Amino acid sequence: MNKKAIVLVLGGGGGGGFKTAADKLSAPLLGRPLVSYVLAAAAGLRPAAVFIAVEGKDDLPPDVLAEGPSPRPVPLVLRGGARRQGQGRPLRWPATGPLLRRHLSADVLVVPADRPLITSKTLKSLLAAHRRNGCSLTLLSLGPDPDRDSIAAVRAGDVVPLLAPLARAGAGAGLRTIAALLSARGRTVGLTELPEAEEALKVAGRGDLARAALVLRRRKNEDLLRRGVVLLDPASTWVDWAAQVGPGTVIHPSVVIEGPSRLGKDCRVHPHVHIMNCRAGDRVRILSSTVLEASRLEDEAQVGPFARLRPGTVIRAGSKVGNFVEMKNTVFGPRSKAQHLSYLGDSLVEEDVNVGAGTITCNYDGVRKSRTRIGAGAFIGSGTELVAPVTVGRRAYVAAGSTITRDVGPDSLAISRARQVEKPGWVLERMKKIRRVRAVT
Amino acid sequence: MNKKAIVLVLGGGGGGGFKTAADKLSAPLLGRPLVSYVLAAAAGLRPAAVFIAVEGKDDLPPDVLAEGPSPRPVPLVLRGGARRQGQGRPLRWPATGPLLRRHLSADVLVVPADRPLITSKTLKSLLAAHRRNGCSLTLLSLGPDPDRDSIAAVRAGDVVPLLAPLARAGAGAGLRTIAALLSARGRTVGLTELPEAEEALKVAGRGDLARAALVLRRRKNEDLLRRGVVLLDPASTWVDWAAQVGPGTVIHPSVVIEGPSRLGKDCRVHPHVHIMNCRAGDRVRILSSTVLEASRLEDEAQVGPFARLRPGTVIRAGSKVGNFVEMKNTVFGPRSKAQHLSYLGDSLVEEDVNVGAGTITCNYDGVRKSRTRIGAGAFIGSGTELVAPVTVGRRAYVAAGSTITRDVGPDSLAISRARQVEKPGWVLERMKKIRRVRAVT
Amino acid sequence: MNKKAIVLVLGGGGGGGFKTAADKLSAPLLGRPLVSYVLAAAAGLRPAAVFIAVEGKDDLPPDVLAEGPSPRPVPLVLRGGARRQGQGRPLRWPATGPLLRRHLSADVLVVPADRPLITSKTLKSLLAAHRRNGCSLTLLSLGPDPDRDSIAAVRAGDVVPLLAPLARAGAGAGLRTIAALLSARGRTVGLTELPEAEEALKVAGRGDLARAALVLRRRKNEDLLRRGVVLLDPASTWVDWAAQVGPGTVIHPSVVIEGPSRLGKDCRVHPHVHIMNCRAGDRVRILSSTVLEASRLEDEAQVGPFARLRPGTVIRAGSKVGNFVEMKNTVFGPRSKAQHLSYLGDSLVEEDVNVGAGTITCNYDGVRKSRTRIGAGAFIGSGTELVAPVTVGRRAYVAAGSTITRDVGPDSLAISRARQVEKPGWVLERMKKIRRVRAVT
Repeated sequence: MNKKAIVLVLGGGGGGGFKTAADKLSAPLLGRPLVSYVLAAAAGLRPAAVFIAVEGKDDLPPDVLAEGPSPRPVPLVLRGGARRQGQGRPLRWPATGPLLRRHLSADVLVVPADRPLITSKTLKSLLAAHRRNGCSLTLLSLGPDPDRDSIAAVRAGDVVPLLAPLARAGAGAGLRTIAALLSARGRTVGLTELPEAEEALKVAGRGDLARAALVLRRRKNEDLLRRGVVLLDPASTWVDWAAQVGPGTVIHPSVVIEGPSRLGKDCRVHPHVHIMNCRAGDRVRILSSTVLEASRLEDEAQVGPFARLRPGTVIRAGSKVGNFVEMKNTVFGPRSKAQHLSYLGDSLVEEDVNVGAGTITCNYDGVRKSRTRIGAGAFIGSGTELVAPVTVGRRAYVAAGSTITRDVGPDSLAISRARQVEKPGWVLERMKKIRRVRAVT
Repeated sequence: MNKKAIVLVLGGGGGGGFKTAADKLSAPLLGRPLVSYVLAAAAGLRPAAVFIAVEGKDDLPPDVLAEGPSPRPVPLVLRGGARRQGQGRPLRWPATGPLLRRHLSADVLVVPADRPLITSKTLKSLLAAHRRNGCSLTLLSLGPDPDRDSIAAVRAGDVVPLLAPLARAGAGAGLRTIAALLSARGRTVGLTELPEAEEALKVAGRGDLARAALVLRRRKNEDLLRRGVVLLDPASTWVDWAAQVGPGTVIHPSVVIEGPSRLGKDCRVHPHVHIMNCRAGDRVRILSSTVLEASRLEDEAQVGPFARLRPGTVIRAGSKVGNFVEMKNTVFGPRSKAQHLSYLGDSLVEEDVNVGAGTITCNYDGVRKSRTRIGAGAFIGSGTELVAPVTVGRRAYVAAGSTITRDVGPDSLAISRARQVEKPGWVLERMKKIRRVRAVT
Repeated sequence: MNKKAIVLVLGGGGGGGFKTAADKLSAPLLGRPLVSYVLAAAAGLRPAAVFIAVEGKDDLPPDVLAEGPSPRPVPLVLRGGARRQGQGRPLRWPATGPLLRRHLSADVLVVPADRPLITSKTLKSLLAAHRRNGCSLTLLSLGPDPDRDSIAAVRAGDVVPLLAPLARAGAGAGLRTIAALLSARGRTVGLTELPEAEEALKVAGRGDLARAALVLRRRKNEDLLRRGVVLLDPASTWVDWAAQVGPGTVIHPSVVIEGPSRLGKDCRVHPHVHIMNCRAGDRVRILSSTVLEASRLEDEAQVGPFARLRPGTVIRAGSKVGNFVEMKNTVFGPRSKAQHLSYLGDSLVEEDVNVGAGTITCNYDGVRKSRTRIGAGAFIGSGTELVAPVTVGRRAYVAAGSTITRDVGPDSLAISRARQVEKPGWVLERMKKIRRVRAVT
């Protein structure tokens, strides 16, 4: 009985709305490339090596290789025949000779890349049955055409003698031919059943991605529920495969969490929130209709509703970012608050700062971007423009409605404001004038 | 065998939460009036004429007639009997005499308006079977009461001789009576099966609209997928029946696209977006939680997140509208940017303009609305009010925090700003005072 | 035949992700505590009394008792045995002796608290069958273990004689033992079927809450549809159990309505709206992506899109609150408008006021919060800060871009604005300078 296993992922073919094989392999599915799912299932076997068979080098986007879990998949270019754009094809077995000879004592698991719902458990069962029954070839039937629509375990050493007849049989010779040749030689060929019919789903075209995503979302959400995450409405919750959420965190309806985001324990995520590639600590509150991208939120931070954090933003512990507030490339200090209608860009805000409503960092003057610094305990009055580069000192107080163009010292009041003038009766005069004009015209 | 077909849509009856027959016929279903679905299915037969039978002229809202595809439906008022508000009723056959006599050589397709899921294909099959079998009447059974719950094909010339006996049989005489009379005369009466049970769904009450919408959305979304649109989560995607989306466009979860909107190719629509009656070119990016109404976005425009475009807005190619930005009745020039917290109303913004955060066009002075013009290449500093009517010249520079009440010439700097004053130590004095007051009180 | 019924709700046990029994009983399910559903179903029997059996006083959060409908549930602490944290357990029958003796002539309905889908109708059927058949005990089977997984009706007077043998039989003696003892004594034991399998759903762990919520949402939404509410997409609509919506109100997809909110007739709620504990009158329009909390909207008010009302806000009849506008603890008068990018906090705004874009009440000066008052018919120009405490008189006019620190009299113009200065050619000079610097560096 073989003890070593290698995996051969079949990566060929585009079609069905995919322009190229590369396009298909890297098609996003719950936030990860299509091929990554089969690679992850393969990794569960702890194989000695994983190969991806393609017809040309550019069939394989480089980031796909980086995506795979250990062992890293090795591309295997199996050229041959006229390349037909957008057409899946059976494996060209004769071209696998060098690989098989290098792994004569191995079982080879052959897995098409476009079956993202296949689980490690199923691959393990297949391999176990294959070995238990002493088969040369064991097929896991997935569809009508065993040459294309099968997952198979096959003894490398038993296929090598067949390579010459397979080459003579032509490009169409696949698992079906191998099974016949093995049977003719008195070898055992086995067949196992798929435990869950849904695992057979084949991403033949772009339209199948949504179907596959639905199953993967269900699996992901069930996993989250098992880990103690509270999903109020799993059916409307989208959590990418790579995202992680801590126990006790409550996710309200219509929330989308993308990329390898990580949320801690006992957080609250209110409805209509969109999170991309973020990290949040514990007890973080993300209120409704908030959009977060490539940002970090420390423990007990609160953002939203209607907050927008752009890449490079760090919200320190216990601080609050309120409605209609945008931050970009900004560190926002512990216990600081920016609750309303503000834009902080390229800024460093220390702790215990109060940023009033309508505060705007003017970080771009048409030519270059500059930074704003606000010291601990400072108070920025509402309706203030901070024209960068500028520093507001610790505990300084900026009066409402000011445009700050020069640095403000610590403990200072800064104010730039025209005197309030009142013209009594002005409104009555104006209405008279308007009435006169209207009477004339 | 008859070669001509006419369609008679049964439009009578309200009830089930519909106040009147008109209320029911025009009830919105995936953005179109209920009756429009049956009219569209009828049009697929390429009939010689389409009639809508109603009991009174005001049973038929005028826009419904305009909604129908070619041939335009003709209202057919079949008065008779006491009119019972809110009650569907079988067709009054004796009243159809003039119509049938005008189309003696036609097959008449009788289709109730409240069966929006009936397809052209099914109507064609019915008509084909009816003709192939040489029937006088062929029923497509949809429910327990064949008089009300049937779609039928009937030879006009064979019904005309029955009009007198039908009149004698009273108001309740319907398809069932016709079938009996025809059989008694030795005519052939056929019955065909509905290919898809869901097509039988009857909108008897308002509650049925949601059920019908669910099926129509599934059909619409499947059609979009077939056309190469990428719907990440079809179940949470709402695209009105009349909306069109180009191939390669990716629509994220929880997106609502209403009315006859048209999106081009390779666009991105992020989660929680609401689009009403808009046109977008190719490669347009609409970021999360954006609301667009009756606006136009040219190629490669980007809007959102949290953008709101009101009617009459045109976003030219390659321009960017960012978060918490509202535009109304504004043309926003190519490659111009308004990225944060701004309101542009009744404005004409030329190309390559930079609109800083917190820019507000003061287009209303309490009496009238006025326009704002911003020339190509101008830079509007943050926190600026533009008091309309006002023009900012080409390449002009408005300093942050200004209130602009007079036109600014090209290449000019405009500034309206009070001097920044600093009072060192002011904060310490203030805290002392507050502490004194607190100690006393 | 007994005529009196009492209900004994079994409240014991945590586990499955619930830290304690109290944690479980008060777990939110469509906005109400888990136990409240069984209490409501029990109330439908109009029982003489309702008891909740728990193992310790702190197993029962006080607000849960307040949540129950009439009759108010009475906690019944049945101590005994070693308390195993996080473990549901059968009822300790011997400890019910005092209760049963007090209600000797009653039928006791025994209902586990973790079956929130059980309906009044089912409990009534059980009780009716129990009495009709003259049973001592009637079981409604819900699962494999009748001691834990049953609802039962039992004659108190017939169980009392069994208390001694039950005590001898040990802690494990439950309904199964009672049934055996009754049968041995020649009493009739009945079994009835559950009319709807879904009612059996048991909330054993946190993951079951989502499943229960799905069924309750369907029931709630069907009830709303029956009452004439138009839900365009029931599957994506979340309306808490306690929320009420008037007929003719149209709710678009992806809307979340929480708590005991009440919306009137013929309202419009656009997509992606989140409402918490609010009241709205008739014909109120709530546009997309709006977040409302503990606020009141009078008839024909319009808010949104992107509006945020915080607690204590009252929007008077016919007024409009537009995009990127936040209000907190503010009364906003009839027919007044605040359409863009504003923050009104701790304010009293009278009728017919126009609040321009970018208006900010500076209600916090770093030490205390103060109020703003705006008189009827006043016009607040765009980009205005109102530094509270401050009053703007009736019909007063505040010029755009002003910072108002002192009260403004009625009919007065108030303005605080620096003169607009223009420097022609400044931009050309600046570009030259920049080019020189760039050439050097």
